Amino acid sequence: MNIVTPRDAFLAAFSLHPAGVAVVTAVLNDGTPVGFTATSLASFSAEPPRATVNIARHASSYPALTVGAPALVHFLAENQVDVARVMAGNHAQRFDGDHWSPDEAGLPRIRDVRALLTGRVVSVTEFGDNATVIIEVEDGSTATDCAPLVYVERRFHSVGDVLPG
Amino acid sequence: MNIVTPRDAFLAAFSLHPAGVAVVTAVLNDGTPVGFTATSLASFSAEPPRATVNIARHASSYPALTVGAPALVHFLAENQVDVARVMAGNHAQRFDGDHWSPDEAGLPRIRDVRALLTGRVVSVTEFGDNATVIIEVEDGSTATDCAPLVYVERRFHSVGDVLPG
Repeated sequence: MNIVTPRDAFLAAFSLHPAGVAVVTAVLNDGTPVGFTATSLASFSAEPPRATVNIARHASSYPALTVGAPALVHFLAENQVDVARVMAGNHAQRFDGDHWSPDEAGLPRIRDVRALLTGRVVSVTEFGDNATVIIEVEDGSTATDCAPLVYVERRFHSVGDVLPG
Repeated sequence: MNIVTPRDAFLAAFSLHPAGVAVVTAVLNDGTPVGFTATSLASFSAEPPRATVNIARHASSYPALTVGAPALVHFLAENQVDVARVMAGNHAQRFDGDHWSPDEAGLPRIRDVRALLTGRVVSVTEFGDNATVIIEVEDGSTATDCAPLVYVERRFHSVGDVLPG
């Protein structure tokens, strides 16, 4: 079907587009934990290991993501829909609960994730009201005993069968 | 488990991270069609409607993605694993076959996709050997009679069940 406005076309297409679910966390200058659920996390380069994430400049986490700042990238598992929702909800309540604890550097670490990358912001490019942040990875770990989480058509899903071809 | 190098940690984490599968196409100055399979496509802003995609600066499509250039973004369906593979393979063979045809503007349009967005490059930010390209959407269409395609753990998958919570 054809859709009327560019914005409607964009929203309809991206609603149909599956995405993994990540949570990016950092701290403000005063040590306050901040973070957000991100479906825009993407690989940027493997050598050196860098990822991008898009964020609104008015977002509560944005002031923490300055060049040089440490950040954590968490890859959520199928059983962490609740964490995805909390970290996408009211920013004043994102750290209410026991889904996180401070790591050795004081950064908010989400518990029981599928993979964790620790790194540092190396670039922030603003364009209009939004920005692309590049995080360079310094360390990380993975857990293989949990399944991936996918967001598509405005709902959380498990991953289905391997496709032939 | 802990992983030895930052690069290994990065590759292991992103291998576990599900992604929708898109194909971005454009044309070189002489009209030659170019394009690539992208798992880095992400929403940047809805107002105005803009998406990001990451690309290596040495990629065959990169010279076509200059500011102002028209581009197409295709969202692949579950039955298009073959298209995903062709458009990720040898760049000299990506347009061998009947999986595409030129659109009214001469851009290579992939057939039977789940969603199509037409737009224009509005920003290219280079960082090291890679770049983030922002495409602003001008028009689009979606098809609802096909299922989404997910890439995770180095394989193509269908989307599974809706998760509670």
